[in-house]
Amino acid sequence: MKSTRLEAFSDGVIAVIITIMVLELRVPAASGLPGFLTIVPRLGIYALSFFMVAIYWVNHHELCRRNESINYRVLWANLLFLFLLSLVPFFTDYVQEKHFDSFSVAIYTVVMMSSGGAFLVLRLALNQLHQLHGEPLPKQDRAETIKHVTSIVLYLAALPIAYYKPILALLLNLLVTFIWIAPELGLHRPGRHHAPHA
Amino acid sequence: MKSTRLEAFSDGVIAVIITIMVLELRVPAASGLPGFLTIVPRLGIYALSFFMVAIYWVNHHELCRRNESINYRVLWANLLFLFLLSLVPFFTDYVQEKHFDSFSVAIYTVVMMSSGGAFLVLRLALNQLHQLHGEPLPKQDRAETIKHVTSIVLYLAALPIAYYKPILALLLNLLVTFIWIAPELGLHRPGRHHAPHA
Amino acid sequence: MKSTRLEAFSDGVIAVIITIMVLELRVPAASGLPGFLTIVPRLGIYALSFFMVAIYWVNHHELCRRNESINYRVLWANLLFLFLLSLVPFFTDYVQEKHFDSFSVAIYTVVMMSSGGAFLVLRLALNQLHQLHGEPLPKQDRAETIKHVTSIVLYLAALPIAYYKPILALLLNLLVTFIWIAPELGLHRPGRHHAPHA
Amino acid sequence: MKSTRLEAFSDGVIAVIITIMVLELRVPAASGLPGFLTIVPRLGIYALSFFMVAIYWVNHHELCRRNESINYRVLWANLLFLFLLSLVPFFTDYVQEKHFDSFSVAIYTVVMMSSGGAFLVLRLALNQLHQLHGEPLPKQDRAETIKHVTSIVLYLAALPIAYYKPILALLLNLLVTFIWIAPELGLHRPGRHHAPHA
Repeated sequence: MKSTRLEAFSDGVIAVIITIMVLELRVPAASGLPGFLTIVPRLGIYALSFFMVAIYWVNHHELCRRNESINYRVLWANLLFLFLLSLVPFFTDYVQEKHFDSFSVAIYTVVMMSSGGAFLVLRLALNQLHQLHGEPLPKQDRAETIKHVTSIVLYLAALPIAYYKPILALLLNLLVTFIWIAPELGLHRPGRHHAPHA
Repeated sequence: MKSTRLEAFSDGVIAVIITIMVLELRVPAASGLPGFLTIVPRLGIYALSFFMVAIYWVNHHELCRRNESINYRVLWANLLFLFLLSLVPFFTDYVQEKHFDSFSVAIYTVVMMSSGGAFLVLRLALNQLHQLHGEPLPKQDRAETIKHVTSIVLYLAALPIAYYKPILALLLNLLVTFIWIAPELGLHRPGRHHAPHA
Repeated sequence: MKSTRLEAFSDGVIAVIITIMVLELRVPAASGLPGFLTIVPRLGIYALSFFMVAIYWVNHHELCRRNESINYRVLWANLLFLFLLSLVPFFTDYVQEKHFDSFSVAIYTVVMMSSGGAFLVLRLALNQLHQLHGEPLPKQDRAETIKHVTSIVLYLAALPIAYYKPILALLLNLLVTFIWIAPELGLHRPGRHHAPHA
Repeated sequence: MKSTRLEAFSDGVIAVIITIMVLELRVPAASGLPGFLTIVPRLGIYALSFFMVAIYWVNHHELCRRNESINYRVLWANLLFLFLLSLVPFFTDYVQEKHFDSFSVAIYTVVMMSSGGAFLVLRLALNQLHQLHGEPLPKQDRAETIKHVTSIVLYLAALPIAYYKPILALLLNLLVTFIWIAPELGLHRPGRHHAPHA
């Protein structure tokens, strides 16, 4: 299978995931500003999930364009990644329904960590394919390993913290978002102002 | 990243946003024509949101085809724009659930104004990229600035008006729709009968 | 704008419309076969709506490939068509919630007729564009006019019938489906076994 | 119609089907781990449906790339297949709402079997088109017939079993998933590590 096709399907799934999350938002019972203020935290976690999924989309694109065709290992790693990502809208709703309690934030963090883990498996499967072709790994690969390890450490730290300060655990989740904002941040930059040509 | 890819993903997200809004419509409890008449205002705001999002799609396309590749500033401005646009279905529902009260119409207007603001930021980021390449700005750019300023003035005017006459504020929202109907309305026209070749 | 882009966006919207309809189906309260039998009529109207939208997709494709680029009249006729089509899931739910009563079937028929009307407007806008280019209308055009007129007559007939026999009115809706199954049914056939190359 | 277009539309529909299923998941009323444990079986059937649909996507792609253009028989077989597949989210919800009772698992199995049957009809329609062109059937065709027959036998076996042990019937459904994981598993392999170039 060509990697462009895998990417097109993944893009479709990610576009739906990122958008249907809004259906989980509920209009508050109270009217006016007091009612609106009660849903501000819900809008916050919606924003966190939205940008996390968006960042996966950007990084997924960077990953896919490294190979022209893919093998079944990549195909199934990708489907596992999409499956875990598809759970994000549900667990975003979970946190909202449970009013940001410790357990809901912890399980949200577990889902985020699992998505990150599946993304790591996908990257390793693509790297293995690279090396089978005798091609060198892209320059930013080592930086990505550092990012993956840092993310997992942050998620693991967020788990016990969720039991004392759920909000702090969500801030750690947000921190992971910043780590991944630019796919090759601070490493190789083909130019100051351009994203790499795809 | 190539701008065609950014556009394809944005198109996917916009197609989902525009369509899932219909899921917020509720079948009225009353039967027959009296029941149907109670949902006519809801169909009205649904139509307003549908066409506003549709118009963003048309104008987004015009914007994207100006550059071949994009930088991270454009990428993130675009994601911010999509995030705000993704809130439109929720705040459309908000107005419906709150029976067009002042606050709900005001917050709807704020979301619309924010989407417009993010679209302006996106345009400026694309213009900056243009000028870095030493390319002249497209002819319709000045007209677009006028449109953006007019839109924001109309939205700002709608805010206090929403507290006296919510319906009038929604009509101002509708007016913005008309401003943007044709991307280069009345300015440069490559031909009378054709949309510019993309 | 190129017509391929209009078509890609329309395809996205139609793909979402056709699929989210399933979210309106409700699991019956009763268990086992008796419970399932209560939702069979709902599955029936779901199937009717699904195939009607699918048929619009096929015919929309036939229409779009006639022109290479489009003008604003076509663009807006297309958005109006998509808007009306986006109401189909809601009015399918309407019929289900109102247990196939006369009014709900009549309003469903009106929405179907309006979609058909907008599709006719879209075809006429595309034909006008053809003639501006000095190109002859495609051979099947006259047959399509016959189909459009027949469809509207059937829909109009279904309206009063809905007040006596709602099920009969839905059968007339189903009949329209059959009229449009093959875009150039019985007229020009490039070959017995092939759909025209797109 | 070109088969690439049929595939693009089908991909869109499948991407929406696979993703909206998550909207059927409900946050449990109970808090903490005990609440979460009550939804684990629901996550299980969600995963089963997700991967079954994903596998259809992979196999659908393999099927579509065999022909360059398609006829109406293929077009309608494909729409029937998509219709049946679109019912999967609803019947997944059905099993969840009915707490995995015998009838709900049996009807879920019937829907899965029907999707498989429609996929078989689609394959036969494509094969017929092949033979009209005087082209030989692809090498893996016989293996696919074996897979189709085995799947149907497994689904038929699952039906009576659902009345005694619904969970066992779902395991048979899962078994079908494994049969279809690799489109040409164990038959022709162009290389050990690559999916066929599409």
